[in-house]
Amino acid sequence: MTDVLSRRDIDFLLYEWLDVVSLTTRKRFAEHSKDTFDAVLDLSADIAHKHFATHNKKADANEPTMRPDGTVEMIPEVQQALDIFSAAGLTAGQFDETVGGMQLPTTVARAAMAWFQAANAGTAAYPFLTAANANLIATYGTAQQIDDYVRPMLEGRWFGTMCLSEPQAGSSLADITARALPQDGSYRLTGTKMWISGGDHELSENIVHLVLAKTPGGGTGVKGISLFIVPKFLPGSGGVLGERNDVTLVGLNHKMGNRGTTNTLLSFGDGTHSPHGQAGAIGFLVGEEHRGLSYMFHMMNEARIGVGFVATALGYAGYLQSLEYAKVRTQGRPVGAKDPSAPPVPIIDHADVRRMLMAQKSYVEGALALGLYCSRLVDEQNTAFDESAGADAGLLLDVLTPIAKSWPSQWCLEANSLAIQVHGGYGYTRDYDVEQFYRDNRLNPIHEGTHGIQGLDLLGRKVAMHDGAGVTLLGSKIAETIGRARRIGSDAARYADELEGVWDRMVEVTSALLSAQDVAAALANSSVYLEAFGHTVIAWIWLEQLTSVDGKTGDFYDGKRAATHYFYTYELSKVGPQLELLGRMDRTLVDLNPAVF
Amino acid sequence: MTDVLSRRDIDFLLYEWLDVVSLTTRKRFAEHSKDTFDAVLDLSADIAHKHFATHNKKADANEPTMRPDGTVEMIPEVQQALDIFSAAGLTAGQFDETVGGMQLPTTVARAAMAWFQAANAGTAAYPFLTAANANLIATYGTAQQIDDYVRPMLEGRWFGTMCLSEPQAGSSLADITARALPQDGSYRLTGTKMWISGGDHELSENIVHLVLAKTPGGGTGVKGISLFIVPKFLPGSGGVLGERNDVTLVGLNHKMGNRGTTNTLLSFGDGTHSPHGQAGAIGFLVGEEHRGLSYMFHMMNEARIGVGFVATALGYAGYLQSLEYAKVRTQGRPVGAKDPSAPPVPIIDHADVRRMLMAQKSYVEGALALGLYCSRLVDEQNTAFDESAGADAGLLLDVLTPIAKSWPSQWCLEANSLAIQVHGGYGYTRDYDVEQFYRDNRLNPIHEGTHGIQGLDLLGRKVAMHDGAGVTLLGSKIAETIGRARRIGSDAARYADELEGVWDRMVEVTSALLSAQDVAAALANSSVYLEAFGHTVIAWIWLEQLTSVDGKTGDFYDGKRAATHYFYTYELSKVGPQLELLGRMDRTLVDLNPAVF
Repeated sequence: MTDVLSRRDIDFLLYEWLDVVSLTTRKRFAEHSKDTFDAVLDLSADIAHKHFATHNKKADANEPTMRPDGTVEMIPEVQQALDIFSAAGLTAGQFDETVGGMQLPTTVARAAMAWFQAANAGTAAYPFLTAANANLIATYGTAQQIDDYVRPMLEGRWFGTMCLSEPQAGSSLADITARALPQDGSYRLTGTKMWISGGDHELSENIVHLVLAKTPGGGTGVKGISLFIVPKFLPGSGGVLGERNDVTLVGLNHKMGNRGTTNTLLSFGDGTHSPHGQAGAIGFLVGEEHRGLSYMFHMMNEARIGVGFVATALGYAGYLQSLEYAKVRTQGRPVGAKDPSAPPVPIIDHADVRRMLMAQKSYVEGALALGLYCSRLVDEQNTAFDESAGADAGLLLDVLTPIAKSWPSQWCLEANSLAIQVHGGYGYTRDYDVEQFYRDNRLNPIHEGTHGIQGLDLLGRKVAMHDGAGVTLLGSKIAETIGRARRIGSDAARYADELEGVWDRMVEVTSALLSAQDVAAALANSSVYLEAFGHTVIAWIWLEQLTSVDGKTGDFYDGKRAATHYFYTYELSKVGPQLELLGRMDRTLVDLNPAVF
Repeated sequence: MTDVLSRRDIDFLLYEWLDVVSLTTRKRFAEHSKDTFDAVLDLSADIAHKHFATHNKKADANEPTMRPDGTVEMIPEVQQALDIFSAAGLTAGQFDETVGGMQLPTTVARAAMAWFQAANAGTAAYPFLTAANANLIATYGTAQQIDDYVRPMLEGRWFGTMCLSEPQAGSSLADITARALPQDGSYRLTGTKMWISGGDHELSENIVHLVLAKTPGGGTGVKGISLFIVPKFLPGSGGVLGERNDVTLVGLNHKMGNRGTTNTLLSFGDGTHSPHGQAGAIGFLVGEEHRGLSYMFHMMNEARIGVGFVATALGYAGYLQSLEYAKVRTQGRPVGAKDPSAPPVPIIDHADVRRMLMAQKSYVEGALALGLYCSRLVDEQNTAFDESAGADAGLLLDVLTPIAKSWPSQWCLEANSLAIQVHGGYGYTRDYDVEQFYRDNRLNPIHEGTHGIQGLDLLGRKVAMHDGAGVTLLGSKIAETIGRARRIGSDAARYADELEGVWDRMVEVTSALLSAQDVAAALANSSVYLEAFGHTVIAWIWLEQLTSVDGKTGDFYDGKRAATHYFYTYELSKVGPQLELLGRMDRTLVDLNPAVF
């Protein structure tokens, strides 16, 4: 079996570029060393290949179904894989030792998790959602809530979800109608939640839902939203499960891809169950009333980077499979070879196949580097010696988060399309894996905020906040990289010049958009802005990698050089016309009469 | 149900732009009128909506399977739909009356066929392949072959296939190993053919395979290839079927999409059957020995334009569904609306949704216009009063064919992705149709020659032939359009200037590539050339449409203006960086050491 990720690349990114070993000088990570990091990575790759990749196709072909009794049927390999994952303690990778975690740097924990996402995105989603849920309760919950919920989740006995959307309100959380009324120190919830991944199943003893609902007195819109823990089974005394809560699986969504994860419509408080003798789902408030959305954003920011990782992992797995295929499949002859009796060559010898492979390499390695860079910022934010360094890391992370979510979702999906194309007709069949990667990956530009939402977040919020401090800080980081690049040789200096030109223009256009009186026109093309910004960021990330391989020899480092060359030659040039369009602040789409469609 | 195509747009393209009614002055079409054209279009839309669209999803969810006895099981709706299609005489739309056809212009016949392709690409493939097969035999076959095979195919009683690829030779026909040995006036064939659509089923009384195989004495490579008619059942006397021929279904391919069409691995001459008491598939030579590939190219060129139509039709159907969804789905509020208690607006009010709809509109209407323009060239080639006009049409068609195949395959697939995105999470589920369109459409950049093959055909053959006469002719057509556009107003004049600039640069780059000593470097980015050329052609096609709506008022015409504006503002600008890249003739990919991947 082809590896689902490149360990060599991960080692380069973690140890040669991001220097994660230096994190062991921080108190939080003092018990760790390169050896413990390697052990987690080795273990993750091993379990991912042996227990996750092995049922990826089967899970896709046999999606979960709902039995007449309301339980969920799925292939047994999912449970087996998750049991092994939980037993290895991997859910708790980056959590505090005090709650049973390994206290790993986020950077290492994310790299470890990526193996599972590349091997089987569907099965990997359960612990991924559980860790995000547990992290939120660990941050905002009471000591009792942490004991009651975080511990069993980190032990892998309970799983977690996040319940935001409703059928009538996908991205528009202001319009949710789920309600929570206080009663006896807890709350009773009623309402319907849509698109809840891992929303029901029998894989774990219990399921901990984190639910957004409106409480009285909070006003209209997002202000009235509070956050609740709503367990499927109420916690009993002494660790045994208590009563069944009033949360009911209404139906499973049947998707194009990502079929291994149950995706559900859940009803809260419809009276199917009657905890404490009364209909209504019992919920426990997290933090304060009416601050639910701000807590949830903590989790959503983490989840957005997580979605970027899933997209990257799927792109990476497809790249490696198409690379392997291109080396062994023979067809055709080189341009100019006239002798039809000469044997056909491996298709990797054809320039167009090389282009498709190099594009994939530049997308998936660029995306992985960005994801790990953002994870390193999380570590910096949490553990920097110096408070201002931590704050800077947080600011940079804020600006980069919509890119870390959207760019891999767009370009690693494109990588999957190229992986199919390299395989030709075979890649379009279910005999190969790449068509599934392509279907699975198509979800990622949608969930955790669509492409359009990420664009509005970036242009309407992130680049504007603190008088543009985030963009200024990113600019200074880019300038540092450009400075280093100029010292290492003519190719790097040329890329540096190009990046500088694009970045200067990006800053100009950003200023013009932010100072425009006509806000609707300024924001009309925020998706284009998102794409232009994303390609520029990835060009910077490639220049960063290039400066890290300076003076090093061998195929691996030459590959980084070649991919940087590719990105600057074939990709960065796409940004110019986008910035020109943005600068024009064309009102056509805003003013359009919809009847003309 | 939402319509699968826009009849208003088809009427505009056929009657207001391409003036197909003027074709009725040609002898071949003298029996026709706008009324007969309308009748065929009405009938097609009606049958497509009532009998094809209705089982599109069911056919996708229940793909054909092979029974133990080697026959093929599929849902009964396919047979029912095809019986109605055949009874209406639609297979024979553009064929001569002498063989039972309607003698319709190709332009009208293609427009009629597009309804079926939009409604159900899987089921529509059977008559589409049959017509292509019949057209080849009608062109190169003997009178007897036409009687024996073309007539029953046009009556819809027999279906046809084309058998080119083999498992070890997809695009590289020089490497096929199927062999044909002469015996008793016919031939005996042996070999294996892969990816044969409609290769076996029980939908028709008989299946007529057109098979490429090598005959002795033709030399190596493509020169040895001859073309054979190999029927599943040999024709008997008096119209009854004769013996079963030695063609055996080995297996069905299971694809990501396009599941409604059986796609097969066929074995010829393996002795499963023994026609005339002897193993070996009996085949009848078409035309002369060793000229098989040139005959097949006739069919392949037609099929390439046909693939472009399927891609367009799928894109169009998705566009119309997402447009309808965007009008009825409410969510969120306009940028700047501060009152969260105001009701949510239809999502078509959001600029980013409008961008996604307008992009789709510009892709699918642009692609349909190009497809019909090419079909009009076929009619001109076949029926022009003036021989040189016919030759010109043929030359232009040669240059445009790779674009007519590749551009819709790339951009109408992108349209399908945008249709999913407009639907949000719902679009990713199988409750809506758009995810199927996206899966179905992903085949089109692969079959009938991949994107890479089309690029080599365009740059390595079409633009070079006859000293660049094709490009020169296209340039003169573009110049005419530019001249007309400049006379109709300032917007049109601006587009004209932009198109002129891009085209001039395209010609410069083309000359540089064609005169380069380093052929490998010149051809290394032929896929990029294909994309740049394609976007430029579509920009021209939009300017053509714009000049056709001059002076006309109303929403429909305003929509054409808006889509032209979109294409020139958001799309044409992508070409500049591509031409710059091409002009550089970068050897990186050619020289690359594959070990660096």
